[in-house]
Amino acid sequence: MKTQGLVQVYTGNGKGKTTAALGVALRILGHGGRVGVVQFFKYPVQSEGLDKEGAFRALRKFSGRFRVWSFGGGFTWRVAREENAKAVQKAWKKCCELLKDSKYNLVILDEIHIALRYKFLKASDVVKVLGRKRPGQHVILTGRGAPQAIIRRADLVTEMKCIKHPFHRGILAQSGIEF
Amino acid sequence: MKTQGLVQVYTGNGKGKTTAALGVALRILGHGGRVGVVQFFKYPVQSEGLDKEGAFRALRKFSGRFRVWSFGGGFTWRVAREENAKAVQKAWKKCCELLKDSKYNLVILDEIHIALRYKFLKASDVVKVLGRKRPGQHVILTGRGAPQAIIRRADLVTEMKCIKHPFHRGILAQSGIEF
Repeated sequence: MKTQGLVQVYTGNGKGKTTAALGVALRILGHGGRVGVVQFFKYPVQSEGLDKEGAFRALRKFSGRFRVWSFGGGFTWRVAREENAKAVQKAWKKCCELLKDSKYNLVILDEIHIALRYKFLKASDVVKVLGRKRPGQHVILTGRGAPQAIIRRADLVTEMKCIKHPFHRGILAQSGIEF
Repeated sequence: MKTQGLVQVYTGNGKGKTTAALGVALRILGHGGRVGVVQFFKYPVQSEGLDKEGAFRALRKFSGRFRVWSFGGGFTWRVAREENAKAVQKAWKKCCELLKDSKYNLVILDEIHIALRYKFLKASDVVKVLGRKRPGQHVILTGRGAPQAIIRRADLVTEMKCIKHPFHRGILAQSGIEF
Protein backbone atom coordinates (compact mmCIF):
# COMPACT_ATOMS: atom_id res chain seq x y z
CA MET A 1 0.00 0.00 0.00
CA LYS A 2 2.49 2.65 -1.14
CA THR A 3 0.44 5.78 -1.62
CA GLN A 4 0.70 9.41 -0.75
CA GLY A 5 -1.51 9.87 2.28
CA LEU A 6 -4.55 12.10 1.93
CA VAL A 7 -6.12 14.26 4.60
CA GLN A 8 -9.88 13.99 4.26
CA VAL A 9 -12.64 15.93 5.96
CA TYR A 10 -16.28 14.89 6.38
CA THR A 11 -18.34 17.73 7.75
CA GLY A 12 -21.86 19.23 7.52
CA ASN A 13 -25.15 18.71 9.31
CA GLY A 14 -26.13 15.63 7.30
CA LYS A 15 -25.91 11.96 8.19
CA GLY A 16 -23.13 9.65 7.16
CA LYS A 17 -19.92 11.37 8.24
CA THR A 18 -18.62 8.66 10.57
CA THR A 19 -20.37 6.06 8.44
CA ALA A 20 -18.47 7.18 5.34
CA ALA A 21 -15.23 7.12 7.34
CA LEU A 22 -15.94 3.54 8.38
CA GLY A 23 -16.66 2.73 4.74
CA VAL A 24 -13.16 4.00 3.88
CA ALA A 25 -11.82 1.88 6.75
CA LEU A 26 -13.42 -1.13 5.06
CA ARG A 27 -11.57 -0.33 1.86
CA ILE A 28 -8.25 -0.11 3.63
CA LEU A 29 -8.97 -3.36 5.49
CA GLY A 30 -9.97 -5.00 2.22
CA HIS A 31 -6.56 -4.02 0.83
CA GLY A 32 -4.84 -5.64 3.82
CA GLY A 33 -4.15 -2.35 5.63
CA ARG A 34 -4.47 -1.32 9.26
CA VAL A 35 -6.87 1.27 10.70
CA GLY A 36 -6.89 3.20 13.98
CA VAL A 37 -9.90 5.22 15.18
CA VAL A 38 -9.88 7.81 17.95
CA GLN A 39 -13.39 8.71 19.09
CA PHE A 40 -13.72 12.14 20.65
CA PHE A 41 -16.86 12.53 22.79
CA LYS A 42 -18.02 8.97 22.39
CA TYR A 43 -21.77 9.26 22.61
CA PRO A 44 -23.76 7.55 25.35
CA VAL A 45 -25.99 4.61 24.44
CA GLN A 46 -29.29 6.51 24.30
CA SER A 47 -28.10 8.70 21.42
CA GLU A 48 -26.86 7.71 17.99
CA GLY A 49 -23.93 5.90 19.63
CA LEU A 50 -26.04 2.77 19.97
CA ASP A 51 -26.15 2.18 16.27
CA LYS A 52 -22.72 3.34 15.38
CA GLU A 53 -21.80 0.53 17.76
CA GLY A 54 -23.23 -1.97 15.27
CA ALA A 55 -20.64 -0.95 12.70
CA PHE A 56 -17.79 -0.91 15.20
CA ARG A 57 -18.87 -4.34 16.40
CA ALA A 58 -18.86 -5.63 12.83
CA LEU A 59 -15.35 -4.29 12.26
CA ARG A 60 -14.06 -6.36 15.19
CA LYS A 61 -13.95 -9.19 12.63
CA PHE A 62 -10.71 -7.56 11.49
CA SER A 63 -9.19 -7.93 14.93
CA GLY A 64 -5.64 -6.76 15.06
CA ARG A 65 -6.06 -4.60 11.96
CA PHE A 66 -8.92 -2.40 13.21
CA ARG A 67 -8.54 -0.68 16.57
CA VAL A 68 -10.67 1.93 18.33
CA TRP A 69 -9.84 4.20 21.25
CA SER A 70 -12.76 6.08 22.80
CA PHE A 71 -12.57 9.03 25.14
CA GLY A 72 -15.24 10.94 27.00
CA GLY A 73 -18.84 10.20 27.81
CA GLY A 74 -20.55 12.08 25.01
CA PHE A 75 -20.54 15.81 24.51
CA THR A 76 -23.30 17.42 26.51
CA TRP A 77 -23.53 20.63 28.48
CA ARG A 78 -24.35 18.54 31.54
CA VAL A 79 -20.78 17.26 31.59
CA ALA A 80 -18.39 19.69 33.28
CA ARG A 81 -16.08 21.48 30.87
CA GLU A 82 -13.02 20.23 32.81
CA GLU A 83 -14.11 16.65 32.33
CA ASN A 84 -14.53 17.11 28.57
CA ALA A 85 -11.22 18.97 28.39
CA LYS A 86 -9.39 16.08 30.06
CA ALA A 87 -10.97 13.51 27.75
CA VAL A 88 -10.06 15.60 24.69
CA GLN A 89 -6.45 15.90 25.83
CA LYS A 90 -6.21 12.11 26.20
CA ALA A 91 -7.85 11.58 22.80
CA TRP A 92 -5.52 14.08 21.16
CA LYS A 93 -2.46 12.39 22.70
CA LYS A 94 -3.59 9.11 21.16
CA CYS A 95 -4.09 10.83 17.77
CA CYS A 96 -0.54 12.18 17.89
CA GLU A 97 0.80 8.70 18.66
CA LEU A 98 -1.10 7.10 15.78
CA LEU A 99 0.01 9.81 13.33
CA LYS A 100 3.63 8.89 14.09
CA ASP A 101 3.01 5.15 13.76
CA SER A 102 3.57 3.94 10.23
CA LYS A 103 1.77 0.65 11.01
CA TYR A 104 -1.52 2.54 10.59
CA ASN A 105 -2.50 3.14 6.95
CA LEU A 106 -5.59 5.11 8.01
CA VAL A 107 -6.25 7.11 11.15
CA ILE A 108 -9.80 8.37 11.80
CA LEU A 109 -10.19 11.34 14.16
CA ASP A 110 -13.89 10.91 14.84
CA GLU A 111 -15.80 14.06 15.91
CA ILE A 112 -12.58 16.03 16.32
CA HIS A 113 -14.31 19.07 14.78
CA ILE A 114 -16.52 19.25 17.86
CA ALA A 115 -13.41 19.48 20.05
CA LEU A 116 -12.15 22.30 17.83
CA ARG A 117 -15.48 24.09 17.72
CA TYR A 118 -15.70 24.25 21.51
CA LYS A 119 -12.04 25.25 21.78
CA PHE A 120 -10.84 22.16 23.61
CA LEU A 121 -8.19 21.94 20.89
CA LYS A 122 -6.51 24.51 18.63
CA ALA A 123 -6.84 24.07 14.86
CA SER A 124 -3.26 25.33 14.44
CA ASP A 125 -1.99 22.47 16.64
CA VAL A 126 -3.93 19.92 14.63
CA VAL A 127 -2.61 21.36 11.35
CA LYS A 128 0.94 21.21 12.73
CA VAL A 129 0.63 17.52 13.67
CA LEU A 130 -0.99 16.69 10.30
CA GLY A 131 2.07 18.26 8.67
CA ARG A 132 4.35 15.80 10.46
CA LYS A 133 2.33 12.62 9.90
CA ARG A 134 3.79 9.52 8.21
CA PRO A 135 3.86 10.20 4.42
CA GLY A 136 1.83 7.13 3.40
CA GLN A 137 -0.79 7.63 6.05
CA HIS A 138 -4.37 8.64 5.28
CA VAL A 139 -6.24 10.69 7.86
CA ILE A 140 -9.97 11.36 8.11
CA LEU A 141 -11.40 14.08 10.33
CA THR A 142 -15.13 14.03 11.02
CA GLY A 143 -17.74 16.18 12.73
CA ARG A 144 -19.92 19.12 11.81
CA GLY A 145 -18.43 22.60 11.64
CA ALA A 146 -14.91 21.84 10.36
CA PRO A 147 -12.86 25.02 10.90
CA GLN A 148 -11.44 26.87 7.89
CA ALA A 149 -7.84 26.11 8.89
CA ILE A 150 -8.59 22.38 8.68
CA ILE A 151 -10.40 22.75 5.35
CA ARG A 152 -7.41 24.65 3.95
CA ARG A 153 -5.07 21.85 5.06
CA ALA A 154 -7.27 18.98 3.80
CA ASP A 155 -6.86 17.36 0.39
CA LEU A 156 -10.48 16.23 0.10
CA VAL A 157 -13.45 17.84 1.81
CA THR A 158 -17.02 16.57 1.62
CA GLU A 159 -19.96 18.30 3.20
CA MET A 160 -22.84 16.03 4.17
CA LYS A 161 -25.95 18.18 3.81
CA CYS A 162 -29.21 17.11 5.38
CA ILE A 163 -31.90 17.61 2.74
CA LYS A 164 -34.61 15.63 4.49
CA HIS A 165 -34.64 13.86 7.84
CA PRO A 166 -37.13 11.29 9.19
CA PHE A 167 -37.43 13.19 12.50
CA HIS A 168 -39.20 15.85 10.46
CA ARG A 169 -41.80 13.22 9.70
CA GLY A 170 -42.05 11.90 13.25
CA ILE A 171 -40.26 8.59 12.81
CA LEU A 172 -38.19 7.61 15.83
CA ALA A 173 -34.53 6.61 15.83
CA GLN A 174 -34.11 3.00 14.85
CA SER A 175 -31.79 0.21 15.84
CA GLY A 176 -29.37 -0.69 13.09
CA ILE A 177 -29.99 2.23 10.81
CA GLU A 178 -30.10 5.60 12.56
CA PHE A 179 -26.73 7.31 12.31
CA MET B 1 -34.39 -6.28 14.14
CA LYS B 2 -38.03 -5.13 14.24
CA THR B 3 -37.97 -1.62 12.87
CA GLN B 4 -39.93 0.43 10.43
CA GLY B 5 -37.86 0.43 7.26
CA LEU B 6 -36.46 3.72 6.03
CA VAL B 7 -35.86 4.77 2.46
CA GLN B 8 -32.59 6.66 2.34
CA VAL B 9 -30.99 8.62 -0.46
CA TYR B 10 -27.32 9.56 -0.85
CA THR B 11 -26.84 11.96 -3.68
CA GLY B 12 -24.67 14.95 -4.72
CA ASN B 13 -21.35 15.41 -6.49
CA GLY B 14 -19.25 14.68 -3.40
CA LYS B 15 -17.43 11.53 -2.39
CA GLY B 16 -18.74 8.95 0.04
CA LYS B 17 -22.18 8.02 -1.29
CA THR B 18 -21.56 4.30 -1.79
CA THR B 19 -19.06 4.37 1.05
CA ALA B 20 -21.68 5.69 3.46
CA ALA B 21 -24.12 3.04 2.22
CA LEU B 22 -21.52 0.35 2.95
CA GLY B 23 -21.04 1.89 6.39
CA VAL B 24 -24.77 1.43 7.02
CA ALA B 25 -24.41 -2.15 5.76
CA LEU B 26 -21.76 -2.66 8.44
CA ARG B 27 -24.20 -1.50 11.09
CA ILE B 28 -26.87 -3.88 9.92
CA LEU B 29 -24.33 -6.74 9.78
CA GLY B 30 -23.13 -5.81 13.26
CA HIS B 31 -26.70 -6.20 14.48
CA GLY B 32 -26.89 -9.65 12.92
CA GLY B 33 -28.90 -8.55 9.87
CA ARG B 34 -28.65 -9.40 6.18
CA VAL B 35 -27.72 -7.02 3.35
CA GLY B 36 -28.21 -7.22 -0.41
CA VAL B 37 -26.52 -4.83 -2.86
CA VAL B 38 -27.47 -4.33 -6.49
CA GLN B 39 -24.79 -2.44 -8.43
CA PHE B 40 -26.04 -0.59 -11.49
CA PHE B 41 -23.26 0.31 -13.95
CA LYS B 42 -20.51 -1.45 -12.02
CA TYR B 43 -17.45 0.56 -12.87
CA PRO B 44 -14.48 -0.95 -14.68
CA VAL B 45 -11.24 -1.46 -12.82
CA GLN B 46 -9.47 1.64 -14.10
CA SER B 47 -12.00 3.98 -12.52
CA GLU B 48 -13.06 4.33 -8.90
CA GLY B 49 -14.40 0.77 -8.99
CA LEU B 50 -10.98 -0.57 -8.11
CA ASP B 51 -11.07 0.80 -4.64
CA LYS B 52 -14.69 0.30 -3.95
CA GLU B 53 -13.67 -3.31 -4.54
CA GLY B 54 -11.56 -3.16 -1.39
CA ALA B 55 -14.64 -2.52 0.71
CA PHE B 56 -16.69 -5.16 -1.05
CA ARG B 57 -13.86 -7.62 -0.60
CA ALA B 58 -13.71 -6.82 3.12
CA LEU B 59 -17.46 -7.40 3.47
CA ARG B 60 -17.06 -10.93 2.15
CA LYS B 61 -16.10 -11.78 5.73
CA PHE B 62 -19.83 -11.73 6.40
CA SER B 63 -20.44 -14.42 3.84
CA GLY B 64 -24.05 -15.46 3.65
CA ARG B 65 -25.23 -12.22 5.23
CA PHE B 66 -23.75 -9.80 2.66
CA ARG B 67 -24.46 -10.37 -1.02
CA VAL B 68 -23.73 -8.30 -4.10
CA TRP B 69 -25.19 -8.51 -7.60
CA SER B 70 -23.44 -6.43 -10.27
CA PHE B 71 -24.77 -5.55 -13.69
CA GLY B 72 -23.20 -3.71 -16.59
CA GLY B 73 -19.67 -2.74 -17.41
CA GLY B 74 -19.60 0.81 -16.14
CA PHE B 75 -21.56 3.69 -17.53
CA THR B 76 -19.76 5.29 -20.40
CA TRP B 77 -20.90 6.75 -23.69
CA ARG B 78 -18.71 4.21 -25.48
CA VAL B 79 -21.09 1.44 -24.39
CA ALA B 80 -24.10 1.12 -26.67
CA ARG B 81 -27.32 2.35 -25.14
CA GLU B 82 -29.00 -1.02 -25.75
CA GLU B 83 -26.32 -2.79 -23.78
CA ASN B 84 -26.76 -0.44 -20.83
CA ALA B 85 -30.54 -0.73 -21.10
CA LYS B 86 -30.36 -4.53 -20.87
CA ALA B 87 -28.05 -4.45 -17.87
CA VAL B 88 -30.32 -1.94 -16.11
CA GLN B 89 -33.37 -4.13 -16.70
CA LYS B 90 -31.59 -7.11 -15.16
CA ALA B 91 -30.41 -5.03 -12.22
CA TRP B 92 -33.90 -3.65 -11.66
CA LYS B 93 -35.41 -7.15 -11.74
CA LYS B 94 -33.00 -8.17 -8.98
CA CYS B 95 -33.94 -5.05 -6.96
CA CYS B 96 -37.63 -5.97 -7.21
CA GLU B 97 -36.86 -9.50 -6.00
CA LEU B 98 -34.84 -8.27 -3.01
CA LEU B 99 -37.52 -5.73 -2.04
CA LYS B 100 -40.01 -8.59 -1.74
CA ASP B 101 -37.63 -10.80 0.26
CA SER B 102 -38.01 -10.23 3.99
CA LYS B 103 -34.69 -12.03 4.66
CA TYR B 104 -32.93 -8.81 3.60
CA ASN B 105 -32.91 -6.11 6.30
CA LEU B 106 -31.16 -3.65 4.01
CA VAL B 107 -31.15 -3.40 0.23
CA ILE B 108 -28.71 -1.01 -1.45
CA LEU B 109 -29.54 0.18 -4.98
CA ASP B 110 -26.10 1.43 -5.90
CA GLU B 111 -25.93 4.11 -8.62
CA ILE B 112 -29.61 3.68 -9.45
CA HIS B 113 -29.93 7.48 -9.82
CA ILE B 114 -27.70 7.24 -12.90
CA ALA B 115 -30.14 4.76 -14.44
CA LEU B 116 -32.97 7.19 -13.70
CA ARG B 117 -31.08 10.20 -14.96
CA TYR B 118 -30.42 8.61 -18.34
CA LYS B 119 -34.01 7.33 -18.51
CA PHE B 120 -33.17 3.64 -18.44
CA LEU B 121 -35.70 3.43 -15.60
CA LYS B 122 -38.75 5.49 -14.64
CA ALA B 123 -38.81 7.16 -11.23
CA SER B 124 -42.53 6.43 -10.96
CA ASP B 125 -41.84 2.68 -11.29
CA VAL B 126 -39.17 2.83 -8.60
CA VAL B 127 -41.51 4.77 -6.27
CA LYS B 128 -44.23 2.18 -6.86
CA VAL B 129 -41.93 -0.74 -5.95
CA LEU B 130 -40.63 1.13 -2.89
CA GLY B 131 -44.24 1.47 -1.78
CA ARG B 132 -44.67 -2.31 -1.82
CA LYS B 133 -41.40 -3.27 -0.11
CA ARG B 134 -41.31 -5.39 3.08
CA PRO B 135 -42.25 -3.12 6.02
CA GLY B 136 -39.13 -3.78 8.09
CA GLN B 137 -36.76 -3.36 5.17
CA HIS B 138 -34.38 -0.45 4.84
CA VAL B 139 -33.47 0.72 1.35
CA ILE B 140 -30.63 2.98 0.27
CA LEU B 141 -30.49 4.58 -3.17
CA THR B 142 -27.19 6.12 -4.27
CA GLY B 143 -25.84 8.16 -7.16
CA ARG B 144 -25.63 11.80 -8.11
CA GLY B 145 -28.69 13.60 -9.40
CA ALA B 146 -31.47 11.88 -7.43
CA PRO B 147 -34.75 12.85 -9.14
CA GLN B 148 -37.33 14.88 -7.21
CA ALA B 149 -39.85 12.01 -7.20
CA ILE B 150 -37.34 9.84 -5.33
CA ILE B 151 -36.48 12.63 -2.90
CA ARG B 152 -40.19 13.11 -2.17
CA ARG B 153 -40.58 9.39 -1.43
CA ALA B 154 -37.43 9.08 0.72
CA ASP B 155 -37.43 9.39 4.50
CA LEU B 156 -33.84 10.56 4.76
CA VAL B 157 -31.89 12.40 2.09
CA THR B 158 -28.25 13.41 2.36
CA GLU B 159 -26.42 15.40 -0.27
CA MET B 160 -22.68 14.78 -0.41
CA LYS B 161 -21.20 18.07 -1.59
CA CYS B 162 -17.67 18.24 -2.92
CA ILE B 163 -16.03 21.23 -1.26
CA LYS B 164 -12.47 20.35 -2.21
CA HIS B 165 -11.05 17.50 -4.24
CA PRO B 166 -7.44 16.29 -4.53
CA PHE B 167 -7.66 16.22 -8.34
CA HIS B 168 -7.85 20.00 -8.12
CA ARG B 169 -4.42 19.81 -6.56
CA GLY B 170 -3.01 17.31 -9.01
CA ILE B 171 -2.87 14.27 -6.75
CA LEU B 172 -3.70 11.07 -8.58
CA ALA B 173 -6.32 8.51 -7.56
CA GLN B 174 -4.93 6.17 -4.98
CA SER B 175 -5.35 2.52 -4.17
CA GLY B 176 -7.33 1.94 -1.02
CA ILE B 177 -8.59 5.44 -0.51
CA GLU B 178 -9.98 7.07 -3.65
CA PHE B 179 -13.73 6.74 -3.78
